[in-house]
Amino acid sequence: MPEEGEITIRCILVIFGGTGDLAHRKIYPAIYNLYVSGKLPENFALVAVGRRDFNNEGFREAAAESIKHYSRENKGTPDDIVHVVSSFYYFQIDFTKGEGYGQLKEFLETLDSRYQTMGNRIFYLAVAPEFFETIVTHIAANGMTDQATGFKRVVIEKPFGRDLVTARKLNDVLMSAFSEDQIYRIDHYLGKEMLQNIMVIRFANTMFEPLWNNKYIDHIQITSSETAGVENRGGYYDNAGALRDMLQNHMLQLLMLTAMEPPVSLNTHSIRDEKVKVLKALSPLDKESVSTNVVRGQYGEGIINNRKVPGYRSENRIQPDSDTETFIALKVNIDNFRWAGVPFYLRTGKRLAEKCTKIVVQFLRLPAILYYKDYGNLDPNRLIIEIQPREGVKIKFNGKKPGSKDEIIPVEMDFCQNCEIGAVSPDAYERLLLDVMCGDSTLFTRWDEVEYAWQFVDNISEAWSAQKPAFPNYAAGTWGPPESDELIGRDGRNWVNY
Amino acid sequence: MPEEGEITIRCILVIFGGTGDLAHRKIYPAIYNLYVSGKLPENFALVAVGRRDFNNEGFREAAAESIKHYSRENKGTPDDIVHVVSSFYYFQIDFTKGEGYGQLKEFLETLDSRYQTMGNRIFYLAVAPEFFETIVTHIAANGMTDQATGFKRVVIEKPFGRDLVTARKLNDVLMSAFSEDQIYRIDHYLGKEMLQNIMVIRFANTMFEPLWNNKYIDHIQITSSETAGVENRGGYYDNAGALRDMLQNHMLQLLMLTAMEPPVSLNTHSIRDEKVKVLKALSPLDKESVSTNVVRGQYGEGIINNRKVPGYRSENRIQPDSDTETFIALKVNIDNFRWAGVPFYLRTGKRLAEKCTKIVVQFLRLPAILYYKDYGNLDPNRLIIEIQPREGVKIKFNGKKPGSKDEIIPVEMDFCQNCEIGAVSPDAYERLLLDVMCGDSTLFTRWDEVEYAWQFVDNISEAWSAQKPAFPNYAAGTWGPPESDELIGRDGRNWVNY
Repeated sequence: MPEEGEITIRCILVIFGGTGDLAHRKIYPAIYNLYVSGKLPENFALVAVGRRDFNNEGFREAAAESIKHYSRENKGTPDDIVHVVSSFYYFQIDFTKGEGYGQLKEFLETLDSRYQTMGNRIFYLAVAPEFFETIVTHIAANGMTDQATGFKRVVIEKPFGRDLVTARKLNDVLMSAFSEDQIYRIDHYLGKEMLQNIMVIRFANTMFEPLWNNKYIDHIQITSSETAGVENRGGYYDNAGALRDMLQNHMLQLLMLTAMEPPVSLNTHSIRDEKVKVLKALSPLDKESVSTNVVRGQYGEGIINNRKVPGYRSENRIQPDSDTETFIALKVNIDNFRWAGVPFYLRTGKRLAEKCTKIVVQFLRLPAILYYKDYGNLDPNRLIIEIQPREGVKIKFNGKKPGSKDEIIPVEMDFCQNCEIGAVSPDAYERLLLDVMCGDSTLFTRWDEVEYAWQFVDNISEAWSAQKPAFPNYAAGTWGPPESDELIGRDGRNWVNY
Repeated sequence: MPEEGEITIRCILVIFGGTGDLAHRKIYPAIYNLYVSGKLPENFALVAVGRRDFNNEGFREAAAESIKHYSRENKGTPDDIVHVVSSFYYFQIDFTKGEGYGQLKEFLETLDSRYQTMGNRIFYLAVAPEFFETIVTHIAANGMTDQATGFKRVVIEKPFGRDLVTARKLNDVLMSAFSEDQIYRIDHYLGKEMLQNIMVIRFANTMFEPLWNNKYIDHIQITSSETAGVENRGGYYDNAGALRDMLQNHMLQLLMLTAMEPPVSLNTHSIRDEKVKVLKALSPLDKESVSTNVVRGQYGEGIINNRKVPGYRSENRIQPDSDTETFIALKVNIDNFRWAGVPFYLRTGKRLAEKCTKIVVQFLRLPAILYYKDYGNLDPNRLIIEIQPREGVKIKFNGKKPGSKDEIIPVEMDFCQNCEIGAVSPDAYERLLLDVMCGDSTLFTRWDEVEYAWQFVDNISEAWSAQKPAFPNYAAGTWGPPESDELIGRDGRNWVNY
């Protein structure tokens, strides 16, 4: 793997599924934004591989439309868009059949000499996982994975399987043609600005680092809530549910970054080593603890933003008797010296009261002396890391109420990095695509992270499968089923919902 | 002393020097503000004692004018002002002579029955200290200090002497008629909202309390800077200087509150016990350490707010060859386990670049690993308590620069309690006058604080007297003489001037 500082970025990005939703909504706008902010390599071409009948011009027009629609900033001019898509190509094959791959190889080599990309390839599998095997096999069979002629990297999106067994199968397919350090498993949460900031906040600040343990922290809660329903992802989602769609990946990533020990260095392996140690230290769940510590939910109809919305079972491409969970809340313990006695409460769901992703670090109360004695139960201190849509850090602390004799009130210190007008953070895909080009896999998921995450999550789905849930159990627009409040409430705590 | 909660506030406030500047600018507006905010006792009267020829009506008109001019809020109506001053009385005597005091006693007793004030008296000595002895003697001689007939309290303003010897004399005079717990020595800084907040911030917050020591703090700097010159206080100031006018009282109070150990309880004695321990633990200064660790300055002419202003020696009622310091900066060490190795840098002065009083707590750097290794000399964390004119708390910490790969920038969290339009904190005198009425002397200076402060400060003035300074040595509108920057600079640190 190239070290930072000695990277020559030049490559062809080959997108299987290049006419699909992900490519148009995320990848093409991200490439455009990279160009506008001066980060797109000069020696770069993009090849969309698809089954549909397009030519370069038609494809470029469609990509330009998507860029206009989805790119985060209007920094570029129409000329910029024309320039960016001029290095976009369309290559039509039925990628489920072997025939076209040889021609694809030749086509890429033609582009190599045109763009001086030196054989460097990124294969982005923006297709359903069932196609991975055939694509990877044909790529390999046609000599397109040979690193002697430039780097070869493969990018895949979740779902990485639907349990440990299927994930291992999927991984075996990838490993048949690529080595671990050629594989970039995207968890787009890791590309978000504030997620990357968690380690900086923890390890670059004397005011926070010494407090980050069970001597000072009471508990940590991680929430990722959406107001949206399943939208047009019904078919996929009904098969996955909140556990597989959000918890196994995004939520556990947030947990790992929040709880990890300081790594030996900032290099990729050191960081991933520490992250995976968090998963290894998770108190495993069995049937009994799942029933005590895990809550699942599914939304019924309700009101969101003054608009009546249907229940989950009435959504498009959802089974009318579906038992898929759209909400999960759980309490996990990390069995190491740093976190013993500090529960982590995680929750995520669709059609909740508010859209937000945040980490709330709640500190212990001080001993009941001085203000804590004389003025009763003061609010605990809280450090809140806001991931989205607001990106920032807040501290809730206690101060004297102005004008009062000694009355103490909670007050708030605030830092917001995207609140100013025009302050837009880069989209996660920009950062992640650039990292693939640079060969930096720090913000991608290593196989052992996937493996341990599935091990943990499989315990939950196994326990669940033994009992039919009473769904729906929460109204759209609320904070989930009452059992979620009870889960944290019986420990004398409560979710922070603001 | 009455306990909180069982206070019946009823009293007559007797102001010697009731036609003077302090009474008109501070006391009468404060009484009015207390009334408007519902805190002025119903059984209350005010008697201004003075030598000038006034009657009640004339005095009330003058007091009403001052209230209109100086009261912080326009919450009251003209009717309110009329109502407040209707309990104001003027009593004309030459208080340097004994004759009138018997009549004053009778007059106060008349008011007692009119206002049901039960013999409670607060004697506010708003006169120059040379009059204290005669006033106190005559009050006592005329039986006005007898606590059998209601409480008797005396309020005095700085200067409490000009060195330890004169302060002791002054105190002996007071103690000849009053006991320590009847004496209220006003340091109006202690009435400021954010000063009262220092203890709350330190002792009611898990995020700050554990960090408040030499394990985490690099140094603390306390600044109280004015842009104003001596204005109409030239005669007094030229005799006092920054050392006696600001450092001996206000600055050392700030230091004590910042550095004190947690008191056993929030009662007056416990808090004062801890405060005075800070003064006892100060590394004493001798001639040599004064020349190394203390810097004095006097302003020459310069530019403030785009306006040319004269040098100190050209100000009204200042000696043209005055060697009085208008600036002092010093480094002090507190020899206890909490603060060993953590210098405190204090500075105060007139005609500086900006008006502000604040405490900057600068934290140590983290060890040179991770971000501190890879990204060089990151900014240290800082907690800034802003006393005036802005009242708030800021934290400067390190965050990832949005859009960058791993670039780290200092960012700021902010809480401001008087930034919103209309948010005006009570003036210090409101709080302090109310506390005298309630018999709460927590925010006043105990004699031993005065004593230890003079002991410390006398070392400095003695060392200074041995050498004639080269004044003026800084231009008005700057941050003081270059030696001030060198004082902190040679420790590898710098003043925080924003």
